[in-house]
Amino acid sequence: MPRPSAPLLSRDQIAAAALSQIDETGGLSLPRVAATLNVSVSSIYHHFPSGREGVIEGIRGLLSREVPSPLDQNLDWRQYTEQWAHRYRSGFARHPHLVPLLTLQTVTAPETVASYEALAAVLRRAGFAPEDLLHAVSVLDCFILGSALDASAPLDVWADSGDPESALSAAIAATRAQPGDRAQRSFEIGLGLLLTGLAQLIK
Amino acid sequence: MPRPSAPLLSRDQIAAAALSQIDETGGLSLPRVAATLNVSVSSIYHHFPSGREGVIEGIRGLLSREVPSPLDQNLDWRQYTEQWAHRYRSGFARHPHLVPLLTLQTVTAPETVASYEALAAVLRRAGFAPEDLLHAVSVLDCFILGSALDASAPLDVWADSGDPESALSAAIAATRAQPGDRAQRSFEIGLGLLLTGLAQLIK
Repeated sequence: MPRPSAPLLSRDQIAAAALSQIDETGGLSLPRVAATLNVSVSSIYHHFPSGREGVIEGIRGLLSREVPSPLDQNLDWRQYTEQWAHRYRSGFARHPHLVPLLTLQTVTAPETVASYEALAAVLRRAGFAPEDLLHAVSVLDCFILGSALDASAPLDVWADSGDPESALSAAIAATRAQPGDRAQRSFEIGLGLLLTGLAQLIK
Repeated sequence: MPRPSAPLLSRDQIAAAALSQIDETGGLSLPRVAATLNVSVSSIYHHFPSGREGVIEGIRGLLSREVPSPLDQNLDWRQYTEQWAHRYRSGFARHPHLVPLLTLQTVTAPETVASYEALAAVLRRAGFAPEDLLHAVSVLDCFILGSALDASAPLDVWADSGDPESALSAAIAATRAQPGDRAQRSFEIGLGLLLTGLAQLIK
């Protein structure tokens, strides 16, 4: 029998199965991914020669490609960065256990590198000096990743002591009385503060 | 033989073993923690009736207690918050896989709640309204947790294309030429921007 012309297994299939496993179990085991896909572990290495690290980059690329369309490079840097940050946060908000796996290794997924390249080009055109530019991107990255984790936090972030003297309790009660999503609102407030602050780095 | 008067197993021992496992494997399995400690899983439930969630709070409390001494409540709010943020980041920076486990459940560890209560009291005295106060704490939390993950990131956060036209490559090269720790410097820049921004929320 001739070999089938359609590939039986794709990089995207492996990355998607690995992501489901991370979401469900919090960890990543390539033998378990192979078992789910009913293939051998060596088939995974065939597609990702660097193994675990390659699969994690595959997931990073998969999520980068889920973003609908490239952002308009002619947007004002602040609007561009704001939209970029919103997309990035919502991409990771559904995958909290993935976040440390992504931050523990160098970004090599071409789609993701391209997204950072495009952001960097916009910031350079806006007037950020190279060393400020990298810190600006890192600061945004840190805030966005933390906010993505906050987005999957429980409604009650802190146990409410109910003590009438407690400043934390009063703050929790005041926030509960506000309409809308607390984590989303905190994200918007923080992002606004950071963008206003970063604007002052432009020479 | 009478039962030994010293307890054979403490909550802190369980929490420390669970933290080591999370650091080493990225995940938490109570049967594996029990095996490491050479005890039964039911002994763990005896100390932590809520099981996994309780053990994670035990770890949170353990890390909160590692902080040397309470911060001086008479510090200016900005100095207090800055020191609080530095301590908090360095506590989590060595435990990246723990971060999503902590953010996925309500903070109930008494030591950690007390640390947030103390911060909230300082912010209230500084003049933050209750709803702004909770957003201020959330924004700082997000940034600090993301920065803790960034602290354990590899030196090369992004693969360098080496393309002379690339704004990202130029930024990476400029930052490499600077002395000191890139992640630490980004943390200080971002924290400074956030504190300056948050100061404007004070009525």
